[in-house]
Amino acid sequence: MMQNDLSVFNEYESEVRSYVRGFPTVFHQAKGYKLWDLDGKEYVDFFSGAGALNYGHNDENMKQKLLTYIQEDGVTHSLDMATKAKGEFIDAFQNIILKPRNMDYKIMFPGPTGANSVESALKLARKVTGRTNVVSFTNGFHGMTIGALSVTGNKFKRNGAGMPLSNTSTLPYDQFLKESNNSIEYIENFLDNGGSGLDKPAAFIVETVQGEGGLNAASSEWLRSIEKICRERDIKLILDDVQAGVGRTGTFFSFEPAGIKPDFVCLSKSIGGNGSPLAITLVAPEYDKFAPGEHNGTFRGNNFAFVTGTEALNYWKDDRLEKNVQEKSERITSFLDDMIKKHPEMKGVRKGRGFMQGIMSPIEDLADNIAGRCFEHGLIMETAGAEDEVFKLFPPITIDDEGLERGLSILQQAIEEVTAESNLVAK
Amino acid sequence: MMQNDLSVFNEYESEVRSYVRGFPTVFHQAKGYKLWDLDGKEYVDFFSGAGALNYGHNDENMKQKLLTYIQEDGVTHSLDMATKAKGEFIDAFQNIILKPRNMDYKIMFPGPTGANSVESALKLARKVTGRTNVVSFTNGFHGMTIGALSVTGNKFKRNGAGMPLSNTSTLPYDQFLKESNNSIEYIENFLDNGGSGLDKPAAFIVETVQGEGGLNAASSEWLRSIEKICRERDIKLILDDVQAGVGRTGTFFSFEPAGIKPDFVCLSKSIGGNGSPLAITLVAPEYDKFAPGEHNGTFRGNNFAFVTGTEALNYWKDDRLEKNVQEKSERITSFLDDMIKKHPEMKGVRKGRGFMQGIMSPIEDLADNIAGRCFEHGLIMETAGAEDEVFKLFPPITIDDEGLERGLSILQQAIEEVTAESNLVAK
Amino acid sequence: MMQNDLSVFNEYESEVRSYVRGFPTVFHQAKGYKLWDLDGKEYVDFFSGAGALNYGHNDENMKQKLLTYIQEDGVTHSLDMATKAKGEFIDAFQNIILKPRNMDYKIMFPGPTGANSVESALKLARKVTGRTNVVSFTNGFHGMTIGALSVTGNKFKRNGAGMPLSNTSTLPYDQFLKESNNSIEYIENFLDNGGSGLDKPAAFIVETVQGEGGLNAASSEWLRSIEKICRERDIKLILDDVQAGVGRTGTFFSFEPAGIKPDFVCLSKSIGGNGSPLAITLVAPEYDKFAPGEHNGTFRGNNFAFVTGTEALNYWKDDRLEKNVQEKSERITSFLDDMIKKHPEMKGVRKGRGFMQGIMSPIEDLADNIAGRCFEHGLIMETAGAEDEVFKLFPPITIDDEGLERGLSILQQAIEEVTAESNLVAK
Amino acid sequence: MMQNDLSVFNEYESEVRSYVRGFPTVFHQAKGYKLWDLDGKEYVDFFSGAGALNYGHNDENMKQKLLTYIQEDGVTHSLDMATKAKGEFIDAFQNIILKPRNMDYKIMFPGPTGANSVESALKLARKVTGRTNVVSFTNGFHGMTIGALSVTGNKFKRNGAGMPLSNTSTLPYDQFLKESNNSIEYIENFLDNGGSGLDKPAAFIVETVQGEGGLNAASSEWLRSIEKICRERDIKLILDDVQAGVGRTGTFFSFEPAGIKPDFVCLSKSIGGNGSPLAITLVAPEYDKFAPGEHNGTFRGNNFAFVTGTEALNYWKDDRLEKNVQEKSERITSFLDDMIKKHPEMKGVRKGRGFMQGIMSPIEDLADNIAGRCFEHGLIMETAGAEDEVFKLFPPITIDDEGLERGLSILQQAIEEVTAESNLVAK
Repeated sequence: MMQNDLSVFNEYESEVRSYVRGFPTVFHQAKGYKLWDLDGKEYVDFFSGAGALNYGHNDENMKQKLLTYIQEDGVTHSLDMATKAKGEFIDAFQNIILKPRNMDYKIMFPGPTGANSVESALKLARKVTGRTNVVSFTNGFHGMTIGALSVTGNKFKRNGAGMPLSNTSTLPYDQFLKESNNSIEYIENFLDNGGSGLDKPAAFIVETVQGEGGLNAASSEWLRSIEKICRERDIKLILDDVQAGVGRTGTFFSFEPAGIKPDFVCLSKSIGGNGSPLAITLVAPEYDKFAPGEHNGTFRGNNFAFVTGTEALNYWKDDRLEKNVQEKSERITSFLDDMIKKHPEMKGVRKGRGFMQGIMSPIEDLADNIAGRCFEHGLIMETAGAEDEVFKLFPPITIDDEGLERGLSILQQAIEEVTAESNLVAK
Repeated sequence: MMQNDLSVFNEYESEVRSYVRGFPTVFHQAKGYKLWDLDGKEYVDFFSGAGALNYGHNDENMKQKLLTYIQEDGVTHSLDMATKAKGEFIDAFQNIILKPRNMDYKIMFPGPTGANSVESALKLARKVTGRTNVVSFTNGFHGMTIGALSVTGNKFKRNGAGMPLSNTSTLPYDQFLKESNNSIEYIENFLDNGGSGLDKPAAFIVETVQGEGGLNAASSEWLRSIEKICRERDIKLILDDVQAGVGRTGTFFSFEPAGIKPDFVCLSKSIGGNGSPLAITLVAPEYDKFAPGEHNGTFRGNNFAFVTGTEALNYWKDDRLEKNVQEKSERITSFLDDMIKKHPEMKGVRKGRGFMQGIMSPIEDLADNIAGRCFEHGLIMETAGAEDEVFKLFPPITIDDEGLERGLSILQQAIEEVTAESNLVAK
Repeated sequence: MMQNDLSVFNEYESEVRSYVRGFPTVFHQAKGYKLWDLDGKEYVDFFSGAGALNYGHNDENMKQKLLTYIQEDGVTHSLDMATKAKGEFIDAFQNIILKPRNMDYKIMFPGPTGANSVESALKLARKVTGRTNVVSFTNGFHGMTIGALSVTGNKFKRNGAGMPLSNTSTLPYDQFLKESNNSIEYIENFLDNGGSGLDKPAAFIVETVQGEGGLNAASSEWLRSIEKICRERDIKLILDDVQAGVGRTGTFFSFEPAGIKPDFVCLSKSIGGNGSPLAITLVAPEYDKFAPGEHNGTFRGNNFAFVTGTEALNYWKDDRLEKNVQEKSERITSFLDDMIKKHPEMKGVRKGRGFMQGIMSPIEDLADNIAGRCFEHGLIMETAGAEDEVFKLFPPITIDDEGLERGLSILQQAIEEVTAESNLVAK
Repeated sequence: MMQNDLSVFNEYESEVRSYVRGFPTVFHQAKGYKLWDLDGKEYVDFFSGAGALNYGHNDENMKQKLLTYIQEDGVTHSLDMATKAKGEFIDAFQNIILKPRNMDYKIMFPGPTGANSVESALKLARKVTGRTNVVSFTNGFHGMTIGALSVTGNKFKRNGAGMPLSNTSTLPYDQFLKESNNSIEYIENFLDNGGSGLDKPAAFIVETVQGEGGLNAASSEWLRSIEKICRERDIKLILDDVQAGVGRTGTFFSFEPAGIKPDFVCLSKSIGGNGSPLAITLVAPEYDKFAPGEHNGTFRGNNFAFVTGTEALNYWKDDRLEKNVQEKSERITSFLDDMIKKHPEMKGVRKGRGFMQGIMSPIEDLADNIAGRCFEHGLIMETAGAEDEVFKLFPPITIDDEGLERGLSILQQAIEEVTAESNLVAK
């Protein structure tokens, strides 16, 4: 396949295919924040594989480690047997990530996807409590398998199940309720009122920033209140850090600024370093209660991802990457504020934090149109929210100033063009 | 990590870890049917990553293709955007696999695991029929996420869900009923009797050989009857070929000898060629009814697996591999029959077909003890069945005579030792 | 309303009305085995309110007791407060029924219907075991509320729920499996096989004779095997004696001949004596674990039914009624055998036992046509089975020879007419 | 049983018994608003069988009609066959209740309890919409069978199910949310936000005044908003008028002042006139879609209740009863306001409307203690709310001034005594 031709996809791939519709070209090569299609056209990547490519494409150090590993016939696939590559990953994760943060968790390899991690945490929280209900939050997004989909708020996605999704209750996320600044009182009321119909949950599952749900960022105070609510009622706290974790918000775990200690932490996406499938579930030792093999899966031992994932952890040995993200986050924030001010016709609201920010607009199709215009001009960027009402800046966290400015510049141009041309109609 | 030391796993990994307990060593390198641990000890692999390594470890052609791809900074991770590597995989699958078999299916990339494929098929079958119940079979095994676990028969695994698993009904697999040769009459009776309590199912989900469930092989006649039952009642047929597919039974799809046409086919494990996470769901075009993005997932676009998976398909351009499997299957069969005859104290029954055969024994711990002894003597082999009552020969389908005989010889020694030493007690 | 006119029903009552369609007349008075409509036409009642009128209509002793009670302004409605009428009922039930049979049960008043009794037993069995699954049997019928409907086999009724019915599994009733004489081996296999997908049940719920399900009568041996299966596995046994109990099969409890001791017994229908709404749940003392008020209901204290129900228990102070039923059952049996022999074109099979016998015929509409013809000739009789394939003789158990013969004679005439006229076609 | 002795209840009745614990005496006779126990002690009844005795005990007209009916051997039990008594009930209900209110409903007889009516409406709403989710409200109470319990908010009761209750979502009732005057905005937000996780419901089920849930009275405006929400989204509206209906709030249907037109109305409790088990479901003709027999039940045809229920409808031929209730409601309101003012230590809040009013107090056990003291002084009154935090005045709606004042006077005395003696501690 040497031609930039989508016909093989159009003809043979299922209708469910999605991103290829928004980015209709055949990509071939990628490095850092850049992608090239088969025509050689270069794209700036403000999408980062929906958070799976936080370190950019084909990081050179990871690449070299992986090439050596493959060259030497290192074990590729190992289920949950012990391998040198896996041992080194565990060791690095323990010593670079957990210990310096005074975190004490058992590491579970639940299968290679974020949904696997979510499913394992849900199962374990139910098992250790003997309760079946799990509280999730409005606009939460946790995956497409039935267990994970049951705690996902998006109705279009839920509808794909073809059957009722049960054993879950949705409560309002931070700022979902319009009349108050937070939803804590409402949540406590539902939990404690003996007539609320909310069966005592095994766990809460929560994201610190809802990446798919529209870049809703919970405040640290809200997160601490949620933790307190759980602690006081013996409810387990599952922190789904699949999209917001691994540095995207400026710290390795997105919940570090809030200072909370979840009982379960779900990690995936960028944990493998280069976008290779890998997920882990961190489990507080007292809840590490699955019997051997009670949860399993074929691809728990993806050694390529162990190799690149281990190399990636080196980014966290000092605070340079953290600082880079935090500094550039401010640049993104000020850029977005500026756009909102310059284009009041967008009726834009800035959303999110760190390297997961964007603008929500009530204008019909605006976010989609801007993302589409960006693509034409060589910038990959996606939308988020139940109605795709947010455009979402997700650059690699390793991006340099040049890359960031190049992307922002294209985005600015797209905003200007779309707002100028469109007959803007609020939804 | 240069020492063969399990302490990092024992200390930091979750108790749910399983295979590392049966094979307590740190593996490092692997090639074809061989594995080496950090002490340099060589093992023959009759396990094949539970079916994910049908082509053996680090096949040289795949390895070279992959090295080149990585060297050239080919796209690693792409969600469901179009990439050259993905396009070539689709093209090869279409032209090498589907077209020559006169099969007309849309290819869905549901996420990288077999469970993802199963979940996508279950969701779609329910969606297109508007029915919620799905019939699965005794000892069926389809995965650990809630949707897939709901159709899995193993009670120990089901118990891990921590909640009731619903919208499924289990019916007896071929030869599960003792008094009759097949279960077809029973199934028809339950479906058609207006008082059986079996709500009309959206689909049947079935394996041709139950790999995890104890190497139960359905007859072609039974499979055709199941297809007929479905057709006559407008019930969709989901064929889970995750473990038995990709050549393990001697044909690419395990259901080819039966001549049936499932509505959905689940493939994973060896579809990526070298054990890299990849899964596809084949969907009859008339049921390709997910809206764009209605089912999604981060790791649908694992390009390393596309590269190696495409290369692997070359094995199917002629019939050499098929013939190799079919011939060596006969050797395995006669070896197992021989063992059963020589060691009547095992009360062994040969199970399975092709390169997924083994011996079921009612003797307490016998299968486990034999597998343990094999490991000591340098052969990796696992057990199967709800009570681990079967030891299971799963050599790579590319194995040569020397490898096969070496493995069988170790197995023979293990059987002889265990049966000689043990105080055999039937369960 | 003095005219025999159905227009008020046709115009204002819901389409769900059913018996009025088969017996299209307006009834007014009734005594013993006789009913009269507004035209004064007399009918013999071989229907007995589907088992709620085992003692016939308006038994004179009950009537007098009730008239006095009402005349004296006895408490009519009392929830679960103590009343004289309730105390006397409990006392009589204890002394006339339980003690002489060496039965030790707590009496629960779960609401006035059989479904209330079933729901209370299901809830309690789940609560005391901490398990959610309940095993029911093919063609079992337990009621229309969601809990009771979940354990009912009839698909037409289940479909009325408008949602999936969960937490139940159906296993084959005695003689449902065609190839064997009983289903015990199959049931044990499903329970004990670790891969059967049958989650360990809280309870089995079973009828001794399936009145709605087609007059399937379980053998005493089968019932004892079911009890043994439950005992050996710590599964609770719920005996639904709503239709077969209170003397219909010749003993007060239908399970007396089998000699089993259920953990929960559901009674309703004729327990109130004259067809007034009343139900009780007998609970083995060790499982009497509902907290006060954890299950409740407005009509638990129907004192009219306590009064008539207490009077009805006097029938059980000696064995005259039992003997009457047992003797007349033989007459019914021989009559039905004779009909089957004389009319082989019915392809009839005799079903049931005691005063719940009938003939199953595979001939399209035969049972319905015979019941319809009986109605024309002055006999009320209904059909049963998922396809209404059985006509069902349900005379009052207090019927005398004259009444029985009169009914049988009408039935014989109907059979002769229908078999003579019809173009009989097997389904 | 001639002695006022509870031993038969204590010894033989299940522990689940409840009211007998609060009112520990054996009642025997009753008339109007009076009850007598076996010692001849007289009690004023401010309980009215939890709403089943709205017309008081043994109303003389109903009694005479019933005596005549029984004397003449009228049909007692008739399933859903046509009887004279049933026809007259339908006719009266149509002509006295529905027609004058311009209401067009089919009448369904779903079984004799409120829960039967609720279950039938839930099933039918799901069936006609093809959706499974039903929205209920905080502190709603609809019954103890699994379908009805699933829409009941009380956690203690829900826990009795022993299994997860699914296919329902709870939303905040009027004034449940503290920060705003009504919950309408919140509800609309949950329904319309594509990410709220609230699957589109088949129906809302709502009470106008939550009798068991703590006498929460929805405003007419709130009810109209709920109706509007349903209409605009094609959601069915089920009005559970089991407790608040049949005159308890001053109009026959409690929703008359709000002017709404529910799709389904559930009636029971006092619909039978004298506390005999009877329930009806009113179904908008376009949703009368059960097939004949798709929902059934043994005690749908309780003719005694038809006779007394028909007689009771005569109370609604003119507006005297309505006026009586409305006038005396004002007396109750002013009495309660006065008590709250005189006894600020109760921290009382008046709740409810019409003849279902009471006082909520946060003081630990206050409501229970007052009800207990009332009983000692000869007044029957119960508590309500998830924590029994409300005492609840439920006199017969036919009560005269003397009876009302006598009851209020006892209540006043009890309040004075309890507040004087108690060491009042807020919960």
